[in-house]
Amino acid sequence: MNLSEIISGIEDVDKDFLDRARERTDQLVMPQRALGELHVIGEQLCGILRTLKPSVKKKAFLVMAGDHGIAASGVSAYPQVVTGEMVKTFLGGGAGINVLSRLEEAQVMVVDVGIIPDIPEQTGDGGRLLVRKIARGTQDFSQGPAMTRDQAESAILEGFRAAKALFHEGVEIIGTGDMGIGNTSASAAIGAVMTGTPVAGITGRGTGVDDEGFQRKCETIGLGIKRNAPDPKEPMDVLSKVGGFEIGAIAGIILAGAYFRKPVVIDGFISGAGALIAHGLCPATSDYVFAGHRSLEQGHGIILEYMGLRPILNLDMRLGEGTGAALAMHIIEAGACIIKEMLTFEEAGVSQA
Amino acid sequence: MNLSEIISGIEDVDKDFLDRARERTDQLVMPQRALGELHVIGEQLCGILRTLKPSVKKKAFLVMAGDHGIAASGVSAYPQVVTGEMVKTFLGGGAGINVLSRLEEAQVMVVDVGIIPDIPEQTGDGGRLLVRKIARGTQDFSQGPAMTRDQAESAILEGFRAAKALFHEGVEIIGTGDMGIGNTSASAAIGAVMTGTPVAGITGRGTGVDDEGFQRKCETIGLGIKRNAPDPKEPMDVLSKVGGFEIGAIAGIILAGAYFRKPVVIDGFISGAGALIAHGLCPATSDYVFAGHRSLEQGHGIILEYMGLRPILNLDMRLGEGTGAALAMHIIEAGACIIKEMLTFEEAGVSQA
Repeated sequence: MNLSEIISGIEDVDKDFLDRARERTDQLVMPQRALGELHVIGEQLCGILRTLKPSVKKKAFLVMAGDHGIAASGVSAYPQVVTGEMVKTFLGGGAGINVLSRLEEAQVMVVDVGIIPDIPEQTGDGGRLLVRKIARGTQDFSQGPAMTRDQAESAILEGFRAAKALFHEGVEIIGTGDMGIGNTSASAAIGAVMTGTPVAGITGRGTGVDDEGFQRKCETIGLGIKRNAPDPKEPMDVLSKVGGFEIGAIAGIILAGAYFRKPVVIDGFISGAGALIAHGLCPATSDYVFAGHRSLEQGHGIILEYMGLRPILNLDMRLGEGTGAALAMHIIEAGACIIKEMLTFEEAGVSQA
Repeated sequence: MNLSEIISGIEDVDKDFLDRARERTDQLVMPQRALGELHVIGEQLCGILRTLKPSVKKKAFLVMAGDHGIAASGVSAYPQVVTGEMVKTFLGGGAGINVLSRLEEAQVMVVDVGIIPDIPEQTGDGGRLLVRKIARGTQDFSQGPAMTRDQAESAILEGFRAAKALFHEGVEIIGTGDMGIGNTSASAAIGAVMTGTPVAGITGRGTGVDDEGFQRKCETIGLGIKRNAPDPKEPMDVLSKVGGFEIGAIAGIILAGAYFRKPVVIDGFISGAGALIAHGLCPATSDYVFAGHRSLEQGHGIILEYMGLRPILNLDMRLGEGTGAALAMHIIEAGACIIKEMLTFEEAGVSQA
């Protein structure tokens, strides 16, 4: 299946099930919609899954890993070697996403879509690794395009295929995660171009650059946008010129969610940039997406607002890896349980207002 | 044990463990404190539990139920009979708190500290009922004191004992819940008196009164405060004059948490009023308390801020029963898991910034 076939196979969330879900909520044994956002979440799941008994019990995280040429420009507080080291940590089970996915009883699959080192495919205590390397890192986008158009499409398709395989295994909800030193720079560039926000307004400290590093980061991103002149109306142009392999792969996961009518929970800034690409290719995808949290990274809120997504959590997190998606997935499951299991006034025999 | 013995047995959270927990967080394999509030939560648990390996796996909810004389003044959208009907619904397992506590794998214990109808002690699909009735509802506080001073102390002691029994069974964390038609009026009165906020600024719509009902509710609460003139510096005076049995019992749960050095998660506005009473009796209790969420009820934020508590969730909920505490308990457990299970840079062999 190619990208245009995928996009043409995506349909809107089912309005009839959304309406029927809202009717059910109105009858539940409590003051009208007294569980607030939990109802919105549960109803959205009904519309996505075409059922009034939504289940999101079987959970998985797809952590997309890729390296970035832009890291050579000194935009990160950490050396590039950390990307591969963290992939190994994920497989060992000692990283933040491992801890939180264990709590969610969710599997973790890491996909190497373009890290520099070679780490063989394997299953560790912390999860599985798939190697789908598109290249050993992107090119430095401050000097020219990050990748070719073909590579950008491949990145999206690898994300789509990985998600498709999980859905076919019976996974009911996927959380997106990322690893890639330099990827807040690529995400800021995508966000700046696609939402029309000035670079300084959407760029953050990432893993924690100092003032001088932040200045350099903004200048480097600005230079990259100027040199490459990506077309905001052409998401594939934006992704290939200033994006990253893992960002494209995250866009692919979201397309798969919409195509296979399954919910996808996005994590922070990098997942948000992936969602922007998917949204640009097919705006209907956003109705299949839950925004797990609002990250401390200043551009994240801008990106979510642009897509009309309300973050579920706001806990000053900024780690990535899928950690914000992991915590939110529990709240999403709670939304499913409420609409599925709570009694109505009539069923409970309770007097109404 | 009487109230003053309990209070004199409460000690501050352990500063040494707090410091050691922060040192551990600083070494975890991620950018400095990149999981934001999860670290604050995990460290607080270390200080409460005097350990660097905090566990909050074994969870319970204590739902305190009581009726309110003030309901006769037409301050609620629902008839008073709903209090008892909802207690039956809790025992049957079909209410919001049942759905969410099943998801948390937490037990539910309902305590009748003063509802009007007689419902025998029993264990249902949804939880256990203890009958510790102090009276068949409070008196209408717009006409005189809601209860006697002895009844107020009894309410607190019943909450303390119920929590003590659960802690002795091995429960590691308790969420507070409430049921009682009219109890947002009592909570608003407590909040107004103890935080010094005008009645109209702290009173909300409760279960959903209309404009006329809201006007009447504010006037009734104002009248009650004027007639009873509770002393803001005397929490027992406030509780007895304008409070409720379930609110006193919630204060007792919080005192038990602090006394037995266990965390307590408070729910919404009514639990917040209970926490205010506990805070007034012993300010150190607040360090043992997590604010599960910020409710839509307008006074809730004022109460939390007064006690210096940051709500974990903000999902426009306003149901009570312990539902906000239930959702937040999962985030609290995540905070415990992060500090306990995540590797350090050194353990993971990852390069530092």
